[in-house]
Amino acid sequence: MTIKAVVFDAYGTLYDIQSVAAITEQTYPGYGEAITQIWRLKQLEYTWLRTLIERYESFEAITEQSLAYTLDNLGLAYNAGMFELIMDKYRNLDLYPDAMATLAQLKGRKLAILSNGSSAMLNALVRNTGLQPILEATISIESRKVFKPSPKTYTLIEEVLGVGPSETLFVSSNGFDVAGAKAFGLNVAWIERVTAQALAKEFAGPAPAGALTMFKALRMRNEHLGVSPDHRVSSLTGIPAIVAAAD
Amino acid sequence: MTIKAVVFDAYGTLYDIQSVAAITEQTYPGYGEAITQIWRLKQLEYTWLRTLIERYESFEAITEQSLAYTLDNLGLAYNAGMFELIMDKYRNLDLYPDAMATLAQLKGRKLAILSNGSSAMLNALVRNTGLQPILEATISIESRKVFKPSPKTYTLIEEVLGVGPSETLFVSSNGFDVAGAKAFGLNVAWIERVTAQALAKEFAGPAPAGALTMFKALRMRNEHLGVSPDHRVSSLTGIPAIVAAAD
Repeated sequence: MTIKAVVFDAYGTLYDIQSVAAITEQTYPGYGEAITQIWRLKQLEYTWLRTLIERYESFEAITEQSLAYTLDNLGLAYNAGMFELIMDKYRNLDLYPDAMATLAQLKGRKLAILSNGSSAMLNALVRNTGLQPILEATISIESRKVFKPSPKTYTLIEEVLGVGPSETLFVSSNGFDVAGAKAFGLNVAWIERVTAQALAKEFAGPAPAGALTMFKALRMRNEHLGVSPDHRVSSLTGIPAIVAAAD
Repeated sequence: MTIKAVVFDAYGTLYDIQSVAAITEQTYPGYGEAITQIWRLKQLEYTWLRTLIERYESFEAITEQSLAYTLDNLGLAYNAGMFELIMDKYRNLDLYPDAMATLAQLKGRKLAILSNGSSAMLNALVRNTGLQPILEATISIESRKVFKPSPKTYTLIEEVLGVGPSETLFVSSNGFDVAGAKAFGLNVAWIERVTAQALAKEFAGPAPAGALTMFKALRMRNEHLGVSPDHRVSSLTGIPAIVAAAD
């Protein structure tokens, strides 16, 4: 069946969340890696936990709260200026190098983002990085007051784009998002940026696994949750071929 | 108000989940720490994610799936015998050294466990470690088909023990569980086994943070989720005084 819409996850899929590492390291020398990884791990945990305890707050608030958690537990003092400097990078994350070319090749399909981010954060990010004219829609889950991978979030795609799950390809590098989208019924492509072989190699070395290796082990692999993606590619570059093959 | 029931979380609170480290290290020399931490981190993630994607499976299945995930991503081969040897430790976890004495001092109150574990796992664990005669009930969330911190799990306490939230003290070392129980409306004591100061010290050293330090940073601190425990003690030993003070 023809793919009429290609919908991308934002953080970690089109945008490199690791690109906050420079500002965290600059602000807290020697702590950049630990801050970057714990912050992101905690940020996602908080989206899940707030959904489960039924205390929704915006992704912006959660991003702040998880950064505060991280700095507090690493024993790092901060003031409003330092905090805002780091937070600001979330509105200016680096696109993955292959994001623009991939989106250009998909011209003619409805292209969109479906993200946990608040509309304010996402709109700033999409504007700042030049994606705004390319996308049909930048869809925030905020109207649902629950986060991915709740099925209520994925229903937004059809609601906004008017394209059903069977004609939509959802693209994510995040294992939890792949599982949620697939359980919901979308066609799903998983961006496998770190292979099991490469990861095993990092653990096989003499040095103990650091924060970044732990992040990769926890969040860059496919989950064992009883649902599997339809496609697996090593980068965004592989997406146009999947779409073309379905025509 | 008098505390009539004291209800404990099991894994990480009465039972030391780190006690699987000996068997994982013995089975995979050099990998014990990484397996132990990634397994436990992933196990809890899977309870949250399966609740969110509405694909419940028993904690026993999730414990197996998260162990398989861990070994697969560390590049470690296994057969059924090795796998079962490690899994078996989950039915024979070590009690924290102060657990028995604490429970003995609470004699006269209704004492119970409320856990994510399946009834089969929990009953074996409680029997194997001598807690069975001391506890009024070992409550599994399995009848709810969702995991903690969903509010549906905490309603089981009143249903089984006949004691309302205001007369119940819930005890957990797990930040997510503290947040869930408190959001639900229980009196909550958090066991703070690792202080922020001690954790900061681990990150301040010259060596990069290893898997155990990352585990502590991610799962042994109080969460920034907008709800706080009523009490904070450094070990189970502090619980009887909290209960006595409420009389």
